[in-house]
Amino acid sequence: MADYFKGNTEYFPGIKKISYEGPKSDNPLAFKYYDPEKTVGGKKMKDHLRFAVAYWHSFCADGSDPFGSATHVHPWTADASSPMEAAEHKLDAAFEFFTKLGAEYYCFHDRDMAPEGSSPAESEKNLMAIVAKAKERQKATGVNLLWGTANMFNHPRFMNGAATNPEFKVVALAASQIKTAIDATIELGGEGYTFWGGREGYMSLLNTDLKREKDHLAMILTMARDYARGRGFKGMFYIEPKPMEPSKHQYDFDVETVAGFLRHYGLDKDFRMNIEANHAELAGHDFFHELETAASMGLFGSVDANRGDPMNGWDTDQFPTSYTETALAMYAILRAGGFTTGGLNFDAKIRRNSVDPADLFEAHIGGMDAFAAGLIAAQRMIDDGKLSGFVKQRYASFDSGEGAKFEKGGMSLQELAALGTVYGNAGITSGKQERLENIVNQYLLNL
Amino acid sequence: MADYFKGNTEYFPGIKKISYEGPKSDNPLAFKYYDPEKTVGGKKMKDHLRFAVAYWHSFCADGSDPFGSATHVHPWTADASSPMEAAEHKLDAAFEFFTKLGAEYYCFHDRDMAPEGSSPAESEKNLMAIVAKAKERQKATGVNLLWGTANMFNHPRFMNGAATNPEFKVVALAASQIKTAIDATIELGGEGYTFWGGREGYMSLLNTDLKREKDHLAMILTMARDYARGRGFKGMFYIEPKPMEPSKHQYDFDVETVAGFLRHYGLDKDFRMNIEANHAELAGHDFFHELETAASMGLFGSVDANRGDPMNGWDTDQFPTSYTETALAMYAILRAGGFTTGGLNFDAKIRRNSVDPADLFEAHIGGMDAFAAGLIAAQRMIDDGKLSGFVKQRYASFDSGEGAKFEKGGMSLQELAALGTVYGNAGITSGKQERLENIVNQYLLNL
Amino acid sequence: MADYFKGNTEYFPGIKKISYEGPKSDNPLAFKYYDPEKTVGGKKMKDHLRFAVAYWHSFCADGSDPFGSATHVHPWTADASSPMEAAEHKLDAAFEFFTKLGAEYYCFHDRDMAPEGSSPAESEKNLMAIVAKAKERQKATGVNLLWGTANMFNHPRFMNGAATNPEFKVVALAASQIKTAIDATIELGGEGYTFWGGREGYMSLLNTDLKREKDHLAMILTMARDYARGRGFKGMFYIEPKPMEPSKHQYDFDVETVAGFLRHYGLDKDFRMNIEANHAELAGHDFFHELETAASMGLFGSVDANRGDPMNGWDTDQFPTSYTETALAMYAILRAGGFTTGGLNFDAKIRRNSVDPADLFEAHIGGMDAFAAGLIAAQRMIDDGKLSGFVKQRYASFDSGEGAKFEKGGMSLQELAALGTVYGNAGITSGKQERLENIVNQYLLNL
Amino acid sequence: MADYFKGNTEYFPGIKKISYEGPKSDNPLAFKYYDPEKTVGGKKMKDHLRFAVAYWHSFCADGSDPFGSATHVHPWTADASSPMEAAEHKLDAAFEFFTKLGAEYYCFHDRDMAPEGSSPAESEKNLMAIVAKAKERQKATGVNLLWGTANMFNHPRFMNGAATNPEFKVVALAASQIKTAIDATIELGGEGYTFWGGREGYMSLLNTDLKREKDHLAMILTMARDYARGRGFKGMFYIEPKPMEPSKHQYDFDVETVAGFLRHYGLDKDFRMNIEANHAELAGHDFFHELETAASMGLFGSVDANRGDPMNGWDTDQFPTSYTETALAMYAILRAGGFTTGGLNFDAKIRRNSVDPADLFEAHIGGMDAFAAGLIAAQRMIDDGKLSGFVKQRYASFDSGEGAKFEKGGMSLQELAALGTVYGNAGITSGKQERLENIVNQYLLNL
Ligand SMILES: [Co+2]
Ligand SMILES: [Co+2]
Ligand SMILES: [Co+2]
Ligand SMILES: [Co+2]
Ligand SMILES: [Co+2]
Ligand SMILES: [Co+2]
Ligand SMILES: [Co+2]
Ligand SMILES: [Co+2]
Repeated sequence: MADYFKGNTEYFPGIKKISYEGPKSDNPLAFKYYDPEKTVGGKKMKDHLRFAVAYWHSFCADGSDPFGSATHVHPWTADASSPMEAAEHKLDAAFEFFTKLGAEYYCFHDRDMAPEGSSPAESEKNLMAIVAKAKERQKATGVNLLWGTANMFNHPRFMNGAATNPEFKVVALAASQIKTAIDATIELGGEGYTFWGGREGYMSLLNTDLKREKDHLAMILTMARDYARGRGFKGMFYIEPKPMEPSKHQYDFDVETVAGFLRHYGLDKDFRMNIEANHAELAGHDFFHELETAASMGLFGSVDANRGDPMNGWDTDQFPTSYTETALAMYAILRAGGFTTGGLNFDAKIRRNSVDPADLFEAHIGGMDAFAAGLIAAQRMIDDGKLSGFVKQRYASFDSGEGAKFEKGGMSLQELAALGTVYGNAGITSGKQERLENIVNQYLLNL
Repeated sequence: MADYFKGNTEYFPGIKKISYEGPKSDNPLAFKYYDPEKTVGGKKMKDHLRFAVAYWHSFCADGSDPFGSATHVHPWTADASSPMEAAEHKLDAAFEFFTKLGAEYYCFHDRDMAPEGSSPAESEKNLMAIVAKAKERQKATGVNLLWGTANMFNHPRFMNGAATNPEFKVVALAASQIKTAIDATIELGGEGYTFWGGREGYMSLLNTDLKREKDHLAMILTMARDYARGRGFKGMFYIEPKPMEPSKHQYDFDVETVAGFLRHYGLDKDFRMNIEANHAELAGHDFFHELETAASMGLFGSVDANRGDPMNGWDTDQFPTSYTETALAMYAILRAGGFTTGGLNFDAKIRRNSVDPADLFEAHIGGMDAFAAGLIAAQRMIDDGKLSGFVKQRYASFDSGEGAKFEKGGMSLQELAALGTVYGNAGITSGKQERLENIVNQYLLNL
Repeated sequence: MADYFKGNTEYFPGIKKISYEGPKSDNPLAFKYYDPEKTVGGKKMKDHLRFAVAYWHSFCADGSDPFGSATHVHPWTADASSPMEAAEHKLDAAFEFFTKLGAEYYCFHDRDMAPEGSSPAESEKNLMAIVAKAKERQKATGVNLLWGTANMFNHPRFMNGAATNPEFKVVALAASQIKTAIDATIELGGEGYTFWGGREGYMSLLNTDLKREKDHLAMILTMARDYARGRGFKGMFYIEPKPMEPSKHQYDFDVETVAGFLRHYGLDKDFRMNIEANHAELAGHDFFHELETAASMGLFGSVDANRGDPMNGWDTDQFPTSYTETALAMYAILRAGGFTTGGLNFDAKIRRNSVDPADLFEAHIGGMDAFAAGLIAAQRMIDDGKLSGFVKQRYASFDSGEGAKFEKGGMSLQELAALGTVYGNAGITSGKQERLENIVNQYLLNL
Repeated sequence: MADYFKGNTEYFPGIKKISYEGPKSDNPLAFKYYDPEKTVGGKKMKDHLRFAVAYWHSFCADGSDPFGSATHVHPWTADASSPMEAAEHKLDAAFEFFTKLGAEYYCFHDRDMAPEGSSPAESEKNLMAIVAKAKERQKATGVNLLWGTANMFNHPRFMNGAATNPEFKVVALAASQIKTAIDATIELGGEGYTFWGGREGYMSLLNTDLKREKDHLAMILTMARDYARGRGFKGMFYIEPKPMEPSKHQYDFDVETVAGFLRHYGLDKDFRMNIEANHAELAGHDFFHELETAASMGLFGSVDANRGDPMNGWDTDQFPTSYTETALAMYAILRAGGFTTGGLNFDAKIRRNSVDPADLFEAHIGGMDAFAAGLIAAQRMIDDGKLSGFVKQRYASFDSGEGAKFEKGGMSLQELAALGTVYGNAGITSGKQERLENIVNQYLLNL
């Protein structure tokens, strides 16, 4: 019996289920580090990492870029006689891919899965029809939905924003699309629902009312949450920060900005961050920084696993390969409690000139291996406790005595100032940054 | 009688009081646009702009940079026999400069004004001695203090942070320094007190406890506010956002980050933003964006007027010259109600190779003219109402009917979605960005 | 009689020929500064500026971006029954636009003008058929071709480069396309031929042979030059530097890189730079810097007039609006002798949400006014000679005596070192940067 | 007998000679990967890597930054009674450090080693006196000079440039300093002489004559070369590209710019590139890119080994730790023939808050281990030939037949175009970027 899903057509015919062959394997279609059932820190690798495949980049995108037309030919589109048939073929291709790869989750936008109709009602009908088929395939394969979302940035009607559109009618259309996407997510047992606000920002401040737009955005998020909770949805809501692109400026700039927004509008109980590595970079932050920042505020949720190119100022959405980066990411994630409803969603695309069908597999394999290696290193960092021990000791003066009293809020400025009456060598203590960096490297090199 | 202050020595001997000579003047030591008593929009230019000179860059900095030693020779330091005498001479030079330039405000760090002593007590004594002399000169000249602050980034004891130092003793020393700087500010009738946290951030996440550090920062700000309010201080507290430098990452990254922080810790009633143009850029924002963002949240306070170089990734602190930028800045400021306790502080330095004594004057004149021209343009933008009228009309669908109901929070997602049942041309309305940009240019060109 | 071209259909029906109405005009469809026949420095504005419209952005692009589909609907495409008919309608729309706007030049890629056929021969036939029609319209209107070029970045066959493709067959196809585009340019009397190498670079160094690719690029340029010169083409060849996008790295990174390349391969007699403002920025340079650098090497040629957004790391290709920038640009251009075969080509696109037909006009008007204002300011800078006089005097020590001897190459290191035997104040002379910046501002403010 | 140098005082008293203890060692003062005598690819690690210590960062810099004063206290300065005595103590400390660390090379600026005197003659006397002592210590220890250089950026006289100063007298002073620094380099048997032009650029284009300045720079380089060659110097000259900082723009922007410059002025026989990782980044390039670019032009020479922070836009000069980066660097270097006269100079500084004496050792150890690990990985890449084999095959169409004829220059555009008459799938071949990235990762993970 096949160990992967196959619809009427096998869309990746030469490729079998990807298996773990270990670090010395020469096979480009095998895992070198990701061994799903292997236990790390008392938990299976696959349960730590909760890999998800992104429907859009993997099955919809065609390799076009602002200067070039499509290079990726999708057989699942080519062999269909109607958009709805193409959608079902795409679904087959997707589940074939998920199961061959061994990813237990996927993520989608409404428009990835089913074509837009000529009215909101028809769009909804289209989507729910495909959702029904997806549900069957989920049941057949055990692959689950990590999160769903609504694409409210592609259509011209959203060119001035969706929830933040200056025209109320568009806001209403956005609401109808969100409602349907939430319904689809619930129907598929999705563990989360994500908002990435690609056009929730501005092209020019000259024509923009910042306050009104942000208030509207908060209103829509509040209404969406209330609706889903009313329908019994227990999953998590995510905001995915991104500073810009396609908008000149996007309101969900980075983790700190979104945290301020969520708290201000009373949304921080239901919403968490979906942190993308490439977006972190575009905002002037390391991926590790964004993860730690979210974790420090209790707002870490999920990850869009990819990388950017620090030499290119746009969202290149490349597959993650740096296990220095994945190790630090997993170190942050494990210390934040690991994934609960979240996971590692590959919001990554193969290069425009990667036109072999196998490239999509190899790219995911590379990303999964990078995170598996990172997980192993991160677990060792935690087990050894060298790094955390150093940090704990560094702040020890706040653990007792006057330092602890200060931290609890029991002092006035005069009292505190009175303690600071003698200059001396206070503060001239090495941060030991180079040692800590060497220690991290040693974990990586000793995998 | 002299129309400027002069101490025992005249430190800028060849230069007289700077006067307004109009746009055609060939005199590098005259204003071309800044005419202090001229009325714009019913208010004198000088009362709109409230120019302040920064003590540090103008009287302390010496032209050194990370690759070169001092190029600026200060006669006020050279002719003194002790640090305290030098401090007084510097004060004379400063007030001579303020009054010759016609700036009615200044800003200082404690250590700019008086040398650090061998103990906190001696440092305080030094500072308060010079403050007494500054107070006399303020009375004699009518020049006032816009805001004071404490330099908690230069001394090695702060190399790991001040309020966010991992060692409690340093936090206590910081508190004692803040207390004294607040006392000095109150003594001088300062209209504000500023926190710029140059080392309140991290060099490496590997040795940092983000949550603890940010909690400590909030604690110190709270204690400082309570102390000053207890002493009757009615002025405003400012946070000056900066994303990085000297730290790798600074907690007060940008306006949104600081707003989230202030609101989270209940500090948003007493604290406002002091927005620096160069810091905005370093954070990936336009100056105009940061001003509008602060204003949209009711958190705009004051401005550090300068500019960066978009081709250089550090804080170049150049004098503002772009009146396209100053016009948009003043447009934001006027619409936010103008300056109340805040003003335009030139946190700007002449270039390392600008070694003529006159260069300091010419640099300030250029900055003041740029803001004066910007003010004139901004007032016209407001008077004409073309820009604001366009924006108002753009959001008109939220002013009544269902749109207004939505905005007030009176709808569920289902209700709103029910309004969005027909696709059409909703949303396909030009943003008219190019027209608005042309209009702005026309104001600038028609000065 | 109409003062503009109209084909069978008028594609911009509500819009008349744009005229100069002066700085106070309220009409968004009038020039405020650009007065074509007005003389500046002894030459008509239009002959200084030689404005060209870019066929691609204005008549082909549809407002799509990497996150969104087309928003701009082109009637010239919509009303045609075949691609070739659409091409002719587009030509009508283009000449209507050129003449209504008053631009005397245009620029095109082969594929902008005529659709690709199913073979090189058919592509050539298509192009030459439309070229014949364009020639008629040029004759009828007096509008001329500034330069032509070949689009060798859009089609999948060029995904790995054109001249630098690792597959020889693609290089041959590129050659055939270049040959035809040169033929078309010659047929239309084009004054130049441009190479912009969007994919002449790499996506990954891991699969790239840098030396071989650059040698191939030089070979193709050499062959193209020899072909065109053999056909009697007297125009200029241009390279348009751009550092990246769509490629991760592009070989024509910036002016210095291209200059080194041209000189190394012996192409610097026939090739000049076509400098784009936005590309300058992406390479970490000011527009002014790139112009001055090219001029200082005798390699300045033409300009792609636009601007980027310093906060966005990609090619936004916005219309130029900053006349601070255009003034410095024109100052560089005039000192370099002004345009001979080159001109100001608006390689700029209206925003995705600028969907009114008038927006295309208003955007160009804004750009033309910005350059007209910049020209006026630049001519005054030259006439007054303050700036150039300062520079001349600054280097005066090299104009005679030992300095001149050194400059001519008549000294050994020992001789020169022997002149430097006394330390003193040599070199401590102010660069007067702030004064020079104020002077520039005064020209701008006094327009 | 001691296995390290010690002068009258032992300046790093608690630290012994650093030895190799292997990947599992817990000792922060031991090498984990760098095993100097171990053979890799038929050559000892130490002969591959040729590590050099930078005199300036390690023994002169004091931890100050633009916002803070010195944090690093140097005992070799503190215990001296005169600048010259301090210079000798510093020399002792340096050789103690070199030998304890096991670095066989060092690099210096004239002013690092000996204090500037009150005249060029005295400066020369100071330098040559210390050089004589350095020569003794070199002989005693076997440590050699990788390259020398002259610091012509720190002193105010160079605030407007050295070779490119607008004042001829400063150029002459620069020449005298270069002459002496070359003499010192020759005396010490230095294998190279480096030019890093920190102020050979501009602060403002408004006061700059680009052509004249670049001509002067070339003249000085030519004279320096002729002088050194005349004195029998057989070593290599290096230019170290850097795009900016301290200048707004530096003429030696990047490898391509410098290559163009060297070739234009006929200096490319004697000059090679000294490539710094951090400078590469600041110029918008990867370190690997700059190395490959130099190698592809036959201009690779030496390396300043460090790293920047992609989130900070200035030269952070951190110690290299990423062995992903060092592996690719060593892959480029080995394929370029390895180091001949060049080596890996740690132009890197410990963080301002790294104030333990051991931190300097740990930082270098981390850097040396990172390059040792990178070397091992790089040698495997070369031995396996997977990467290079792929590249070779990718361009195979140019190895014979028409492709080879084209490459040799034997075709006209017409001939070549005639070969490109059929469209097909030419060019639609996967670049296999993801596979190649996975392969690189596998080398790194399998160390
Ligand atoms: Co994402
Ligand atoms: Co992304
Ligand atoms: Co500031
Ligand atoms: Co600043
Ligand atoms: Co262009
Ligand atoms: Co462009
Ligand atoms: Co270096
Ligand atoms: Co450096």
